[in-house]
Amino acid sequence: MVTKTLVENILTTSYEQIPEEVKLHGKRSLLNWMGVAIGASNHPSIDMLVELTEDLKSAGQVTIFGREERVDLLMATLINGTSSHIFDYDDTHLDTIHHPSGPVAPVVFALGEHLGLSGKEILHAFILGCEAELRISNAVYPSHYQLGWHITSSTGVFGAAIAAGVLLKLDHEKMSWALGLAGTQSSGLREVFGTMTKPFHPGKAAQNGLLAALLAKKGFTSSTMILEAKRGFANVLAPEHDLEKVNVNWGQDWELLKNSFKPYACGIVLHPSIDACIYLHQHVSPDELESIELRVNQYVLELTGKESPQTGLEGKFSVYFTAAIAFLDGHAGEKQYSDEKVKDRRIKEMQKKVSIIVDAEVKEDEAEVTAILKDGRVITHKVLHAKGSIANPMLEKELLTKFASLVEDNMGKSNSDRTAQLLMNLDEYSSIDELLSLNQNKKAFSK
Amino acid sequence: MVTKTLVENILTTSYEQIPEEVKLHGKRSLLNWMGVAIGASNHPSIDMLVELTEDLKSAGQVTIFGREERVDLLMATLINGTSSHIFDYDDTHLDTIHHPSGPVAPVVFALGEHLGLSGKEILHAFILGCEAELRISNAVYPSHYQLGWHITSSTGVFGAAIAAGVLLKLDHEKMSWALGLAGTQSSGLREVFGTMTKPFHPGKAAQNGLLAALLAKKGFTSSTMILEAKRGFANVLAPEHDLEKVNVNWGQDWELLKNSFKPYACGIVLHPSIDACIYLHQHVSPDELESIELRVNQYVLELTGKESPQTGLEGKFSVYFTAAIAFLDGHAGEKQYSDEKVKDRRIKEMQKKVSIIVDAEVKEDEAEVTAILKDGRVITHKVLHAKGSIANPMLEKELLTKFASLVEDNMGKSNSDRTAQLLMNLDEYSSIDELLSLNQNKKAFSK
Repeated sequence: MVTKTLVENILTTSYEQIPEEVKLHGKRSLLNWMGVAIGASNHPSIDMLVELTEDLKSAGQVTIFGREERVDLLMATLINGTSSHIFDYDDTHLDTIHHPSGPVAPVVFALGEHLGLSGKEILHAFILGCEAELRISNAVYPSHYQLGWHITSSTGVFGAAIAAGVLLKLDHEKMSWALGLAGTQSSGLREVFGTMTKPFHPGKAAQNGLLAALLAKKGFTSSTMILEAKRGFANVLAPEHDLEKVNVNWGQDWELLKNSFKPYACGIVLHPSIDACIYLHQHVSPDELESIELRVNQYVLELTGKESPQTGLEGKFSVYFTAAIAFLDGHAGEKQYSDEKVKDRRIKEMQKKVSIIVDAEVKEDEAEVTAILKDGRVITHKVLHAKGSIANPMLEKELLTKFASLVEDNMGKSNSDRTAQLLMNLDEYSSIDELLSLNQNKKAFSK
Repeated sequence: MVTKTLVENILTTSYEQIPEEVKLHGKRSLLNWMGVAIGASNHPSIDMLVELTEDLKSAGQVTIFGREERVDLLMATLINGTSSHIFDYDDTHLDTIHHPSGPVAPVVFALGEHLGLSGKEILHAFILGCEAELRISNAVYPSHYQLGWHITSSTGVFGAAIAAGVLLKLDHEKMSWALGLAGTQSSGLREVFGTMTKPFHPGKAAQNGLLAALLAKKGFTSSTMILEAKRGFANVLAPEHDLEKVNVNWGQDWELLKNSFKPYACGIVLHPSIDACIYLHQHVSPDELESIELRVNQYVLELTGKESPQTGLEGKFSVYFTAAIAFLDGHAGEKQYSDEKVKDRRIKEMQKKVSIIVDAEVKEDEAEVTAILKDGRVITHKVLHAKGSIANPMLEKELLTKFASLVEDNMGKSNSDRTAQLLMNLDEYSSIDELLSLNQNKKAFSK
């Protein structure tokens, strides 16, 4: 019944029934998503994916955000979804460490462009896709994630299929099949974290979910109870689960409202430590410092314990490097996580001064720093709610600044500002043509 | 070390080192695979996939076997892999219920055509891909399968990636990445059995594995220890596993030699019961029969317990329907599993006379039938090794007859015979051009 009820909930939730604050948060999520997608769109891994589409002679159906090339629908979702997760700077549903936009936004933009849909239709499908995937994540977290599944990908495929299914106007049976096809493609192992394959996950989930809905639309049959069946998604991929959470208080509670945006370009688990080290940056000069001790949540060393990162990407999985740059630069944006910084001798020296204490009492958005100064002084600071958490969210102004910092180098200030404006008013436009044309204008700017 | 050793084994096993009997069995496997792929190539689900490639304007790079359309490399592997599993008539490694050719053959033919490779190169990659996936299956069976994974798909993706990697001449590091990319796409839930999504699995595994190798070739980084890592394939997808089995006696023992071919167009689990009912067909007339009792292995009702199948496809998941047609027709080929037969009143009446007793003592390739006749006589017959099992394999002549029965309707007797001849001598040809041209000749025949 869980799958059936979810499909009913999806198909009976009109755009008008969605509360205004959810729509606003949906638009913020899309703004944040497009910023990180465009920001990373010239990363070597995206070059490789684009080169692959050239090998395959993929048709120029829709936009790759931040680039001039156009590719077919399925390849576009793969590429745009991958791009958005490269910087590890995308949105996060903190309860489940799920990045909801990654698998869903590529689908709604690709279909929105291909089918000439309105901003409202795109936003509607996006919100329903995110809401469904987050509720499925709630149902299987934490056992599913702890076992080793990259939840953004493994449940994100359902969000992608639902968003596509809404835009393709699937009926109940076909939407159920789309979920069956999506669930049987559910995948993504945490073992690949720290490599190019991590950001590949939301891209693949987007592509798999879109494929599921496109096939279901044609009448490709599948299970109609993939979530709850004996050998379905939850029983096979989650040692413990509570499928009640998928449909509970549908239409009243909105998980998407718990979506948070990252002020820093690395895993959320490091953010409290960064806040703490930025505090130190504001109060202590590097010359004065003897050592830094960080008391952190249990996941910090598990996820980001690399002691000697060799690349900027690996730096995101090193609490030592991250603490050093946050203290030295007062920020941990994408520019801090460069290959140059990782090799910088001054930063390497600073890393050695950082020690980590794991404390089961420290919550996920907390950290406590103790700095010992050469003159014997001791400075301590406790972060109770990291910047970007629900209790201490990024302000809209900060989101717009983040977007600009990620996008301006790609398309120039004027196109970047206008793109942000269009996204924050997406529901007022009957098409996304202007948005797409700004992306195409990139070439004019870069000359 | 498991992944590393496997890659070493793959990269150091030359074509010349493979024993002749393994090469012969490889060619038989390809013959059987192509028969079932061509036989099902006009199934509605394949029409849908082909229609999808038209929507996506997929480039005409390589052949869809049994059809005139040409599509890009990735779509061809998806379609050809799906096609080959539609009739549930493909090959089976009985120890693990894994259908090895499904995910691997589409890859070697697609790349073989695209890169203009020789028969030897294609056969070499095919054998190594199958050998690796079967060994991985050995390492995770039965817990992985019992949990709910469709092993053909979930470990087949490794076989596909390896076969592609061999043909793309990946070095050690890139082959490891290809396995990382493959493992993180591992998927396929048994819940979808009985729908069009089951045969979709080997197609998707083929496509995912090829994608993995194509990306690795470009330098797309991934895990280099996906099989054994804490959050890698075995630990996440198999409650119990023994990774020693992946590399044990590599080059001496060949799992591919245990690959068997199905005489009947349904799951292997039903074959002993079919043999038993064909025996009855030869000894009892329908008018004489009062009832049939089948004593079977525990998996029979679990996998094929449908009492009232509504379609030919569902008939393959009904031991009752299957026993009835085997007794009435003396065969259980693809023609027995038609929508018409499932609705046939005479067959439906016969189904009602079939009762099933599950017996834990009955092995997987055993069955015992007891027929009670109207005149009071009782006939019993015990099948110890089903036709198609290792102990009672299909003869090459029977394989050729099976191929012809599947392919002649598609391309005519002369093309069919020549295709079989080319496949059984694949290693003697410097290209597969003639093989492909026979497929294209289909159109001439059908006029």
